[in-house]
Amino acid sequence: LIPMENYGVKCMSIGFLVAEDTPMIWRGPMVMGALQQMLRDVQWGELDVLVVDMPPGTGDAQLTMAQKVPLAGAVLVSTPQDIALLDARRGLNMFRRVDVPVLGIIENMSYFNCPKCGERTEIFSHGGARAEAEKLGVDFLGEVPLAVAIRETSDGGRPIVVSDPESDYAKRFRAIADKVWELLAAGKTGAGKAPPRIVIQ
Amino acid sequence: LIPMENYGVKCMSIGFLVAEDTPMIWRGPMVMGALQQMLRDVQWGELDVLVVDMPPGTGDAQLTMAQKVPLAGAVLVSTPQDIALLDARRGLNMFRRVDVPVLGIIENMSYFNCPKCGERTEIFSHGGARAEAEKLGVDFLGEVPLAVAIRETSDGGRPIVVSDPESDYAKRFRAIADKVWELLAAGKTGAGKAPPRIVIQ
Repeated sequence: LIPMENYGVKCMSIGFLVAEDTPMIWRGPMVMGALQQMLRDVQWGELDVLVVDMPPGTGDAQLTMAQKVPLAGAVLVSTPQDIALLDARRGLNMFRRVDVPVLGIIENMSYFNCPKCGERTEIFSHGGARAEAEKLGVDFLGEVPLAVAIRETSDGGRPIVVSDPESDYAKRFRAIADKVWELLAAGKTGAGKAPPRIVIQ
Repeated sequence: LIPMENYGVKCMSIGFLVAEDTPMIWRGPMVMGALQQMLRDVQWGELDVLVVDMPPGTGDAQLTMAQKVPLAGAVLVSTPQDIALLDARRGLNMFRRVDVPVLGIIENMSYFNCPKCGERTEIFSHGGARAEAEKLGVDFLGEVPLAVAIRETSDGGRPIVVSDPESDYAKRFRAIADKVWELLAAGKTGAGKAPPRIVIQ
């Protein structure tokens, strides 16, 4: 399988292999098979890092990744709400139980600045992920606000780090990537194999 | 198992039965067992309707619900973004394949009104779910905006329909519930058994 490539990033998804609106009605073992096929049968070539974007949860797919693939670490993404942080905490505990280092937590939908008057609204509260990271003893990796510019550029296929690299939003994404990269380079993480494989959840 | 009850709504969750931050590291068959236990071993008493809130996706849990439980219908919730609507479409196709009637689609995070200046921002675009419902031939059930009042009252345990029943937000939730109830009462849906069981995803 040849991965799609854009802006120097190679990408593969089950969604590329089936008709757009076909549901993948799969039991656990099929999900596991597909996951392993994505990792083994795709011509990734040389990579700096392999990032696996996982759905939230602590089920079959997450377990398989954690147990069958040597992982350098996991990055957790959460809104600042208590109820969302609870899921992040469960995810963190799952990764710890199966000896996958948790690289840190990102706060998504961290706040919203009105494009007209500049008023900042903390729709889902604010700061919860930072507090949670401190409590759990992992790095806080950064805040990503709710923003039309981020959503529109991503939907349009030219993400903000490409379309407006000097914007505050782009800087935030790069700062998060830098922190993750530093943690990987510092070798604080588990697997030594190249490329480092990390999961985002 | 005795369900929790508040405001006349009985509620049960695996989350009530385990320590708060314990991850449920379960393979598919265990998820299926737990789902059936929730339905059979909980003293629900007489209900008007049983609502099962499911995570997004077309995996084990969704399949089990669709195949093992007589369902009156499914309600799909999506943000207006194309990429989210794609998942809703896959969900709809899964339910149709297993003969579960789709009652309709709700647009969540439909827009945001600045509390200071009133400016409306369509952070995740707008109207996508309505257009999708028309295309797919199902009812459009309503829009729920991003709003601090909805989030805070829900997090606080007094949802907006209780804490501010005459607010626009509360009216929206009631209008959506009314539409679903009408569809159930009109018998346009599959299962005849009482109480009607519906899944929200």
